[in-house]
Amino acid sequence: MALICRCLHQRLGSIQSIGVKCLSTSAVGKLDPLEPDGPKVETTIPGPKSKELLKQLDAIQQAGSVQFFTDYVKSQGNYIADVDGNVLLDVYTQIASVPIGYNHPKLVEAAKDQKNMSCFINRPALGLNPPHDWTEKLKASLLSVAPPGLNQVQTMMCGACSVEHGLKALFSAYMVKQRKGQPPTEEEMVSCINNLSPGNKPLSILSFKRALHGRTMGALACTHTTPTLKLDMPTPDWPVATFPALKFPLEDNVRENKEAEKRCLAEVRDLLETWNKKGKPVVGIITEPIQAEGGDNYASAEFFQGLQDICKENDIGFMIDEVQTGCGATGKFWAHEHFNLREPPDIVAFSKKMLTGGFYFSNWCRPDKPFKIFNTWVGDPSKMVLLEAVVNVIKEQNLLSNVVTTGDYMMSELKQLQKKYPGLLTNLRGLGTFIAVDLPDASKRDKLLRDIRNKGINMGSLWDQSVRFR
Amino acid sequence: MALICRCLHQRLGSIQSIGVKCLSTSAVGKLDPLEPDGPKVETTIPGPKSKELLKQLDAIQQAGSVQFFTDYVKSQGNYIADVDGNVLLDVYTQIASVPIGYNHPKLVEAAKDQKNMSCFINRPALGLNPPHDWTEKLKASLLSVAPPGLNQVQTMMCGACSVEHGLKALFSAYMVKQRKGQPPTEEEMVSCINNLSPGNKPLSILSFKRALHGRTMGALACTHTTPTLKLDMPTPDWPVATFPALKFPLEDNVRENKEAEKRCLAEVRDLLETWNKKGKPVVGIITEPIQAEGGDNYASAEFFQGLQDICKENDIGFMIDEVQTGCGATGKFWAHEHFNLREPPDIVAFSKKMLTGGFYFSNWCRPDKPFKIFNTWVGDPSKMVLLEAVVNVIKEQNLLSNVVTTGDYMMSELKQLQKKYPGLLTNLRGLGTFIAVDLPDASKRDKLLRDIRNKGINMGSLWDQSVRFR
Repeated sequence: MALICRCLHQRLGSIQSIGVKCLSTSAVGKLDPLEPDGPKVETTIPGPKSKELLKQLDAIQQAGSVQFFTDYVKSQGNYIADVDGNVLLDVYTQIASVPIGYNHPKLVEAAKDQKNMSCFINRPALGLNPPHDWTEKLKASLLSVAPPGLNQVQTMMCGACSVEHGLKALFSAYMVKQRKGQPPTEEEMVSCINNLSPGNKPLSILSFKRALHGRTMGALACTHTTPTLKLDMPTPDWPVATFPALKFPLEDNVRENKEAEKRCLAEVRDLLETWNKKGKPVVGIITEPIQAEGGDNYASAEFFQGLQDICKENDIGFMIDEVQTGCGATGKFWAHEHFNLREPPDIVAFSKKMLTGGFYFSNWCRPDKPFKIFNTWVGDPSKMVLLEAVVNVIKEQNLLSNVVTTGDYMMSELKQLQKKYPGLLTNLRGLGTFIAVDLPDASKRDKLLRDIRNKGINMGSLWDQSVRFR
Repeated sequence: MALICRCLHQRLGSIQSIGVKCLSTSAVGKLDPLEPDGPKVETTIPGPKSKELLKQLDAIQQAGSVQFFTDYVKSQGNYIADVDGNVLLDVYTQIASVPIGYNHPKLVEAAKDQKNMSCFINRPALGLNPPHDWTEKLKASLLSVAPPGLNQVQTMMCGACSVEHGLKALFSAYMVKQRKGQPPTEEEMVSCINNLSPGNKPLSILSFKRALHGRTMGALACTHTTPTLKLDMPTPDWPVATFPALKFPLEDNVRENKEAEKRCLAEVRDLLETWNKKGKPVVGIITEPIQAEGGDNYASAEFFQGLQDICKENDIGFMIDEVQTGCGATGKFWAHEHFNLREPPDIVAFSKKMLTGGFYFSNWCRPDKPFKIFNTWVGDPSKMVLLEAVVNVIKEQNLLSNVVTTGDYMMSELKQLQKKYPGLLTNLRGLGTFIAVDLPDASKRDKLLRDIRNKGINMGSLWDQSVRFR
């Protein structure tokens, strides 16, 4: 969100020879009055206390991914505090999952409010015994920011399970359509229980290379980033198409980009035909509006319109995964709003900054029967209390327009840096404050991230040689 | 837990002809002083307000599974209050997911404690930036009740994702062993990314008929209850074995039960051989210690010891899903503690009453590299705050022994009822307060549940003709 990174004054030295000199920050007016004035670096990061805590945690789980231990009591607004007394401007924001900064006063208020207490300590089976004000809560939070044209929503727990259940809604809706109002056969009903055909169908989903949709088996089958996630995992035989990954700056690559998108759409058509022919019909296409973990890869509005057209022609579902892009990061609440789609997508999955997982869905993806999309909790009312506060802050403080202004400013500053250091920073790309830029290679990128953290900025790596602002 | 259902005074009329007369309750000493003295029924359930709210919710999602809308502010202890002024003794407890009753004073205290505030409003990416006291929190909550012999734990979000990531830990550990210390080949690393062999392996997991492990694709492949969950879903070709499902009373079915278990173990061996031969090696066996949703199906300690032996012989993993059975319901903290296994299971998954998802794991299932078992949140510190309070209450109030006493009492009362109404109640089975009994058929069972709810008891159905106490 706009709050996350507002202003960067950069003096980026030659990474090639001497590493980063400095990437300091100064705030241009605080949206959270309690936020510190700037970063404070007391030790190298991770500092000695983080290192000691890491040893303790690693004794009870694989903790090799930990960067540093955090003092969440002292973290405030855009600033994350660690256990060694360091305070960093956070443009990584828990892998893009903090919507309005740490310890936002409105979240404190919501959590302290006595009338919300029961939401925090009683977790219902929402599919059986929802709280009295559940519909109201959904309307005040999720539905008040629903993607244009969608007015139904299912809550879930996290990104992966939102995607998984979205896919299931597609499988089910496809087969309901195929049966033309007829009930499933007795043979289908019996065989499916033990994983046998004809009840279990070899249906498939088309996903894109370099996509990341989650790490449970169905979501992972649509994920194509690194071997760390994928190696050795059994996976269904589902088609994987090339994603355009436009070259930047756009104005210098118009023809090349257009041709790349044309090729990709043709490949999608081919894959659909191939999979349908081999008896594994494709019931839907899933894509991120911007491929986030895969490298902040963009495609044009026309490309997404083309994808939707293909779905319409084939009478299959179009699912957009807004887990990383949703909740305003691109200057619109949902990134796919930039695409002027002729119709809303059939499924829009969310999580991260939305605090709750879930998905919006169109009428034909609504389960025809209860309990099809179901589990014990199907969400968490306490997250809805917090999301309502978040949504209100976004609206009241007009944060979407702030994202646009801040994003424009950041892009223009980064463009200048890119010009100043040709070959060092390339492929600058962004929408709102969702911004990435490439370094010459992974080792220079990693050095930049380390150095920059020790200068007071917590920033994330991205794909093989990029850094990201969130 | 013991708190849930303490005492039943039953006068069960003839269901066959006139339906249930009465199943009233009276508490034998309250563990929560704020709890009401008994149920209160003002309307048929669902009442008019619930029905009206259901219409509203159904307009924005498929809400056909909803039983009634709940007033969680007024619910207390073992009693759930609905929006129509009814107060029911709750022996269903949000599908067995409420550990110590509604609005327990210790949970209120934990949520109000200023030092916990930051856990409720800041949700970290625990794999990157855990809170300063994360290891302490894991030790005070999850590790303080770890299954004997297991001292490593990974948090997750819900039951399904706990199972999914437990399975992934098995796939990964199996292949690490197969490679005998060698790194994966370049070809494996590249091919896996787009779902191709040799990087993606056709590995499999053996599960049991009538098991329920979750509703995301991997967990669903191990789930075999009803077509509602399974129909039309694509699924991998994994082996499914018969679960013994002992006949009760045990003393009247000794030989039959023993033979059934022997047959089942032989079938497991056969399936392992078949799947290994067809190039889809089985890397592990997953089972519930009591098959819960599938009908409260039991097997003997010897059966589970036999399963573990098979795993040892085949050098594969033994995974126990304690999502519904864990947290004390059977009189031991983990149901598999009843089995006197020679070694701890390799993976023990939990969720529901544990409030957080996750799994304990043995050394050889520890991921060899970071980020293999990972997602944005991998858990939620706010749930750990609550779990710590729950665990303390269980220990301080010695609730496990209370479960045993209460369970014994309930079983003995239900045994008498079973004798009194032969043919009406059969197959009574239970461990602690985890109890089920069969009715003659589904329609009589459903009528009993409706009638009993209108008498003030919220009880769950189970499988095709059972009811359950949780």
